[in-house]
Amino acid sequence: MTIEEREHEKRQKTVQNHLKECGAYAAIVSNKTNLYYLLGQIVEGYLFVPAEGEVVLFVKRPSSLFIKSAKIVPIRKPENMMLQLEGTIPHQSLLLLEFDDLTYNEYLRLSALFPNQRLQNLTPLLREVRSIKSEYEIELFRRSAKKQADVYASIPSYFREGMSDNDLFYEVEYNMRKAGHLGLFKIFGKSMEQFMGCILTGDNAAAPSPYDFALGGAGMHPSTPGGSNGTLLKEGMTVMVDISGNFYGYQSDMSRAFAIGRLPDIAYEAHNLCLQIDREVAQAIRPGITTGGELYDIAISRVQASGFAPYFMGITQKAGFIGHGIGLEINELPLLAPRQKKPFLPGMVFALEPKIVLPGIGPVGVENSYAVTETSVEKLTILTEDLVNLIN
Amino acid sequence: MTIEEREHEKRQKTVQNHLKECGAYAAIVSNKTNLYYLLGQIVEGYLFVPAEGEVVLFVKRPSSLFIKSAKIVPIRKPENMMLQLEGTIPHQSLLLLEFDDLTYNEYLRLSALFPNQRLQNLTPLLREVRSIKSEYEIELFRRSAKKQADVYASIPSYFREGMSDNDLFYEVEYNMRKAGHLGLFKIFGKSMEQFMGCILTGDNAAAPSPYDFALGGAGMHPSTPGGSNGTLLKEGMTVMVDISGNFYGYQSDMSRAFAIGRLPDIAYEAHNLCLQIDREVAQAIRPGITTGGELYDIAISRVQASGFAPYFMGITQKAGFIGHGIGLEINELPLLAPRQKKPFLPGMVFALEPKIVLPGIGPVGVENSYAVTETSVEKLTILTEDLVNLIN
Repeated sequence: MTIEEREHEKRQKTVQNHLKECGAYAAIVSNKTNLYYLLGQIVEGYLFVPAEGEVVLFVKRPSSLFIKSAKIVPIRKPENMMLQLEGTIPHQSLLLLEFDDLTYNEYLRLSALFPNQRLQNLTPLLREVRSIKSEYEIELFRRSAKKQADVYASIPSYFREGMSDNDLFYEVEYNMRKAGHLGLFKIFGKSMEQFMGCILTGDNAAAPSPYDFALGGAGMHPSTPGGSNGTLLKEGMTVMVDISGNFYGYQSDMSRAFAIGRLPDIAYEAHNLCLQIDREVAQAIRPGITTGGELYDIAISRVQASGFAPYFMGITQKAGFIGHGIGLEINELPLLAPRQKKPFLPGMVFALEPKIVLPGIGPVGVENSYAVTETSVEKLTILTEDLVNLIN
Repeated sequence: MTIEEREHEKRQKTVQNHLKECGAYAAIVSNKTNLYYLLGQIVEGYLFVPAEGEVVLFVKRPSSLFIKSAKIVPIRKPENMMLQLEGTIPHQSLLLLEFDDLTYNEYLRLSALFPNQRLQNLTPLLREVRSIKSEYEIELFRRSAKKQADVYASIPSYFREGMSDNDLFYEVEYNMRKAGHLGLFKIFGKSMEQFMGCILTGDNAAAPSPYDFALGGAGMHPSTPGGSNGTLLKEGMTVMVDISGNFYGYQSDMSRAFAIGRLPDIAYEAHNLCLQIDREVAQAIRPGITTGGELYDIAISRVQASGFAPYFMGITQKAGFIGHGIGLEINELPLLAPRQKKPFLPGMVFALEPKIVLPGIGPVGVENSYAVTETSVEKLTILTEDLVNLIN
């Protein structure tokens, strides 16, 4: 058995233990990222996970598969599952389906197959399980963040006078891809979409967007809002690069701000405040005790004492968080936001992104990815956090 | 009023006419692509479209908006809509919601606000409305396909001996982006995802994938199946480029196959068969009469007469279509597939992609985008369809 196969078996066992705990007979998984998490492959199908016993993958596509951690049963449509399952599930037992992923029509079709079961939501359980990363997963984050940092380190070499934020974006994404970036920027749910990340400069960093990212941006076109909008990179402005590091399926998350020439003093002051918040919040974490709400409050009280509060996490439209869990998707648990009451636990991996947008200048601050250890945190995104000057 | 504003107003009116026809009192739209279609902007919110009367946008984000074609009402959560709507909707009237887009949980929350209405599915209605493109939309397709063809024309200049399919992909996407490609590859539903498109060479073109694209491919990593997998581009093989042309929000779709050196005769034979099918199918279209099923049958009977049937549209896992509607998303109506009984209508825009995968050689064939006119079709993707040799 390979290390990956053991990993998937362990994940399935964890889900099964959670099912037992909440008194569920079984769960049916069809979300592709959840399937990848439990099988190591993306398939079109349904994974039947009983609280006890054999896990069965009912698969429509691909037509051939090599998966050891589940029994494989080819199907053409969900109704075909019943040939195998009919009569095996006790009446009135609790069955979990992904209520936050199945469309209403998909739910209708699937739930009709289980008229005698009580149905409840599986999505939060899987989000919780996925929020605790194994050493194997954290190692993939480390490697991803290392590659990401290497490309970020070369960003000053792509800068040319007269280029726009879009032009810089093309160069960074091209070099990310040549370093092995898988391209896709995976996001839980369907409320946001973005192409690999974003680059923001000047006042565009304060442009409101329909999405709940840390910062907005007008974007290249109304059909793709958020991020760079063709603003020229001009002396006296900053530019922030925030492109995800998906090299092995895991989205390491990292932002670095750059100075275009000499900036007004206030930019360095605001930037240093963000670096300080990053350190203080990260150091405040006591695994098993500290909550996302407490971490958010640390940042906010720091900012309020500084006078930069009107510019923290955006200007007119502000993000309601200073960080978020990361994993196979960019918006996992835990959240560093008001009223988050669950403690941070060892194995959680998150991005912390204190950012300030200065009118007429642009965004400053930093974003780092951290893994929660038994006693504190490990920083995954190792690279200078200075406002590196692009004009030398 | 700008041409865009007139366009959005016309689209809203078309939806209102459909609502009247099916006896619905109103529709509520929250899918982002549908909102973009009706408003020209992507927002986080709900568009209330009554069969008659004022269209209202209930918007959560962005915090500021310039939209003339709807009354704008800021909200924090869907329940806030009722302040405006309470009491205005007649008891037992028919209300349409997007059953193929709302998650089950979103549906529960939204439907709870309308306990006295009959609820039905809005998704098919909007897919049908969106399938008929205006002259404005077709012009965006023309411009998009032109830019896409220009980049495709330069593909031979990116080829280097010893490069892999991934390496070629990076070059093409980089040049697409520099030409203004918006990056996102938009797909209806959540059964498929892909990064800008794919490049396939050799036997990887026959590798089954979990997705319902025309061809599969193993992909760069198990988390991103489909497409190139690092196969070296070797003499005697073909390579097919199929990267979407999203330059203005519309996904023009085009594939071209290239020869790496001299190929076995069978490759040219199979390629020419595909070109012939492309022409025959396109010429067979009588607007208002011909159906997608009939067009599919034309292709299949041609292929069956040729001996290439085992290799048409894949080998072990075959696509069940030879083409598909395109628009803001890559998989719109109509479908060129068995048993599709609705006639092709003027304004429909579709991709036609007869492809053959030859073992040990790779994919041949072509994909073109067409707009249905009053009397026939207009080809949008103008570029040589020869198996251009990359080695000169």
